[in-house]
Amino acid sequence: MLKGLAADRHAQGDSRRLNLGALLRRVHLTGPVTRVELADWMGVNRSTVMALTAELAAAGLVREVTAGGSGRAGRPSRVVRPASDTVYVLAFDIAVDRLVAARVGLGGVVAARLEAERPRAGADLDSVVSVLADFGRALHHAAPPGSVCVGVGASYCGMIRPGDGMVRFGPDMGWVDQAFGAELARRLDLGLPVLVGNEAHLGALAEHQRGAGVGVQNLVYLHGDVGVGGGIIVGGELLDGDGGYASEVGHMLVNPYQGRPCGCGSRGCLEAEVGERALLDVAGRPAREKGREAVRAVVAAAAQGEPAARDALRHIGDWLGIGVANVINLFNPGVVIFGGTLQEVFPASAAHVRSRIAANVLPISRDKARLRVSALGYDATLIGAAELGFSPLFADPLGVPTAG
Amino acid sequence: MLKGLAADRHAQGDSRRLNLGALLRRVHLTGPVTRVELADWMGVNRSTVMALTAELAAAGLVREVTAGGSGRAGRPSRVVRPASDTVYVLAFDIAVDRLVAARVGLGGVVAARLEAERPRAGADLDSVVSVLADFGRALHHAAPPGSVCVGVGASYCGMIRPGDGMVRFGPDMGWVDQAFGAELARRLDLGLPVLVGNEAHLGALAEHQRGAGVGVQNLVYLHGDVGVGGGIIVGGELLDGDGGYASEVGHMLVNPYQGRPCGCGSRGCLEAEVGERALLDVAGRPAREKGREAVRAVVAAAAQGEPAARDALRHIGDWLGIGVANVINLFNPGVVIFGGTLQEVFPASAAHVRSRIAANVLPISRDKARLRVSALGYDATLIGAAELGFSPLFADPLGVPTAG
Repeated sequence: MLKGLAADRHAQGDSRRLNLGALLRRVHLTGPVTRVELADWMGVNRSTVMALTAELAAAGLVREVTAGGSGRAGRPSRVVRPASDTVYVLAFDIAVDRLVAARVGLGGVVAARLEAERPRAGADLDSVVSVLADFGRALHHAAPPGSVCVGVGASYCGMIRPGDGMVRFGPDMGWVDQAFGAELARRLDLGLPVLVGNEAHLGALAEHQRGAGVGVQNLVYLHGDVGVGGGIIVGGELLDGDGGYASEVGHMLVNPYQGRPCGCGSRGCLEAEVGERALLDVAGRPAREKGREAVRAVVAAAAQGEPAARDALRHIGDWLGIGVANVINLFNPGVVIFGGTLQEVFPASAAHVRSRIAANVLPISRDKARLRVSALGYDATLIGAAELGFSPLFADPLGVPTAG
Repeated sequence: MLKGLAADRHAQGDSRRLNLGALLRRVHLTGPVTRVELADWMGVNRSTVMALTAELAAAGLVREVTAGGSGRAGRPSRVVRPASDTVYVLAFDIAVDRLVAARVGLGGVVAARLEAERPRAGADLDSVVSVLADFGRALHHAAPPGSVCVGVGASYCGMIRPGDGMVRFGPDMGWVDQAFGAELARRLDLGLPVLVGNEAHLGALAEHQRGAGVGVQNLVYLHGDVGVGGGIIVGGELLDGDGGYASEVGHMLVNPYQGRPCGCGSRGCLEAEVGERALLDVAGRPAREKGREAVRAVVAAAAQGEPAARDALRHIGDWLGIGVANVINLFNPGVVIFGGTLQEVFPASAAHVRSRIAANVLPISRDKARLRVSALGYDATLIGAAELGFSPLFADPLGVPTAG
């Protein structure tokens, strides 16, 4: 579509829907805000905003309250706030070692959550979906009377086909072409589609909207679990490529000589060199140790001065630095955000990461890029799933299907 | 700015300017087109298109002619064509080994060109700008009577600050913070700014608009000269990052162990491993041989079976394949385009490039990415500079400053 040809193309209804969606999304992301601020932000007059908020209030999506106690003269501006307690999505996070489900209210509040560990391998579609559907229905039934579910989003640790939530490749569970989104929707039986995204893509979106990347138009989010996922925001939009499978930072070949074997079948990929197993191996930990706690234990041991743990973090930091240097040269981002287990690993290896950046990033881009750990912590992917679940609401606030 | 809030924000004049620009750009990119096609493409009615084309015709930017000999009944549709012979830009290409200037007519026709070899090192700003300004003025004065220059664009082999054409880093000429764009504009004395872009960025734009990447929303363009530049199109837009310095594919670290020294001061960058010097060294060519012809000679020798040349192309192809595999994993592009001297090197090393892609790209992205040589050949950067020069015209067709 051609930008700017709004005049003839958009019927009045389209324009109104866009404005309602933009306003609701703004209130969702920033919380209570006065009509005056909204009018200013949208570049429209106050009567336009009043008409829009009245429609959203009538639909139960926002509430308008009088801001009290300002002490200033004149009529106080009405404050518009999201109906966080009665409008929600179900969000799911299918991670390598656990399954999480949450009811997340409009405004981004996690109102309730359920969580289960899961075995690392051999989980079939049916068993995973079965647990998630039970969690989802329980959260839905426990919602306050009069609540309405406006969407469902899920974060999955693999490559997801946009549109239908098909898992094209989930190396961790050995899934290939599993209709995860469709199957979870069927089992939930809410009459709502389940929107599915890659965990690092959703982590990037969440950090961009609510975390360490707010206000930054170009960012790279690196998510550590068994491997390393990447989510990249370019010009404020998620980089998804021609098929939706971009941002695969973890399979960047960084070690072409003696690379460690990678789950993808190749060797020397970034995630093979800096993933959980590499860290634990170099630190001399036995193969039975794994997961977030094992990574934390190595970081703690290094802080206590254990030589093997310190060596491991130096080694991982150097490879991680190569990967980070390469993405800074490619994307000239305002910030690189370390999420998942990398939020443990990066602070403990930051000197080595920075040393590689100093050696390998062109000075102009180097000066620009800040390095930060995830502001949303381990919930980044869950919050991203919730944001994905809310997206149909913002596309059409008054027309989206809901489940009461 | 908020998308979709067109109704209140854009005055009638803004909308009209956008529509005029969009229509003119369409005619510029695709050549003569009927009003009926334009109306269909813009989603507006024929009388709207007629009013717009009448304004552009009155300004001398397009001509409307009756399409003859269709043999169909009914009133023939008028064809709108760009005024290619009287509306032009000056385009400059500052490459490693030559300086090129051209008069490029609306519609993208190279009407006249001047070219000079230049010494590889030690060229100061003054000497380079002096040659280019002479070329530019000569091309301008030789333009047909009644012609009008609507812009000036330049492609430069270095890092360019968006906005003012400052060369932040031009390793080849040793330029740091040289006010190239401003100085060339001053010397040309046409009352027009000189818009400057990085050569690989502009090559990518040109291939996207007129070459091997037409209709592809996500592409990677790799430009070989002494080093390797990168231009990346994401969702139809150039990837420029927070500062305008993104897409530096050439400084991706691919060889962390025994890497060749790179002009950036580091070792093992992609451009150090696959650039001109690497190819010529591995092929055993003496240091005095350089440039496009020397690269072609190695490719020709390999085709004749010379072992050293074949070894060199195998070696380069392997490293190039690593770089290409990494960008495919990151960008999931529809096409990777090889320009500059890589249009010689890639076909001669394609088997090795493809072998690395097979080993290192995740299957889903691998199947999607085609590999192509530049369709615009060595003119891709010049054409990109012309497109940059035309950009102010499309932003405001009736208000852009011009030089008669």
